[in-house]
Amino acid sequence: MRVLGIDPGSRIAGFGVIDVAGQQRSYVASGCIKTPVGGTLPERVKALLDGIAQIVETYQPDIAAVEIVFVNVNPQSTLLLGQARGAVIAALVLAGLPIAEYTALQVKQAVVGNGHADKDQVGHMVQRLLRLSGIPQADAADALAVALAHSQHASGVAGQLQKQGRSIRRGRLI
Amino acid sequence: MRVLGIDPGSRIAGFGVIDVAGQQRSYVASGCIKTPVGGTLPERVKALLDGIAQIVETYQPDIAAVEIVFVNVNPQSTLLLGQARGAVIAALVLAGLPIAEYTALQVKQAVVGNGHADKDQVGHMVQRLLRLSGIPQADAADALAVALAHSQHASGVAGQLQKQGRSIRRGRLI
Repeated sequence: MRVLGIDPGSRIAGFGVIDVAGQQRSYVASGCIKTPVGGTLPERVKALLDGIAQIVETYQPDIAAVEIVFVNVNPQSTLLLGQARGAVIAALVLAGLPIAEYTALQVKQAVVGNGHADKDQVGHMVQRLLRLSGIPQADAADALAVALAHSQHASGVAGQLQKQGRSIRRGRLI
Repeated sequence: MRVLGIDPGSRIAGFGVIDVAGQQRSYVASGCIKTPVGGTLPERVKALLDGIAQIVETYQPDIAAVEIVFVNVNPQSTLLLGQARGAVIAALVLAGLPIAEYTALQVKQAVVGNGHADKDQVGHMVQRLLRLSGIPQADAADALAVALAHSQHASGVAGQLQKQGRSIRRGRLI
């Protein structure tokens, strides 16, 4: 199973692609879609649509996992985030992909074992779980974390680890 | 020029199509796209994408005018509205339509002559300006108002009226 994780932001959307075979997860690609600085909403929506379409065409994922965005205290920011997220979901629907959604808390819980982990901890666990030589750029790391969260949810890795008397807790395999 | 006006909501998106020839504006169609009650975000986004695509194919507008949604005090509602708006803009971008955006204040100012007009006043002016036998359903009326606002903006009706020593003020041609 190939999973496309997306972390939608109003200016930049991170993406991460991983392959999942049983409990084995491997890195395929990651990066971010940048929308034009100072662009109009239609221009930024177009950048997201084109970017997602190109990623789907290139990597042919089986499913997309999208982070449920944080509701900001600033209403205008929340609206912009919502618009970006709507455009991303639209692009995925048009690509015919099934879509799973995870909150930031679920993602951190799945990847780090702590729903309140910080960005650095998420980056470190993404690097470790995918055996990367370095920590990916923040937006890409978040998107890879969403894809990893989905892979754990889908393949029941947590349950498998429990059977072995092990689990991931606070970023450590124990 | 044929204008498609859209009033995007998180559950229902109103649409209204008008033809503009000089200062003459005539009604073509209006209605609303209903998203599935209790549907997932991807399901609701798909309903919006399909609905807009069908409207564009049926009525072949030259331009779309979209209301800039009100930023609600409830962050969750604002996020939902933003997502719906992002999906609507995505559908219009995919249809290759130029997109104009107007705030509710601009729409009411243009149609009623009072930026703080209520829904009833907007409905009455839409009925009057388009010579309709009745007031359209609220979502459709709002969408027609957005289309009318764009037609006034584009054809400079306000300026023309001024040259004649007349203007629309508080919903009355004076």
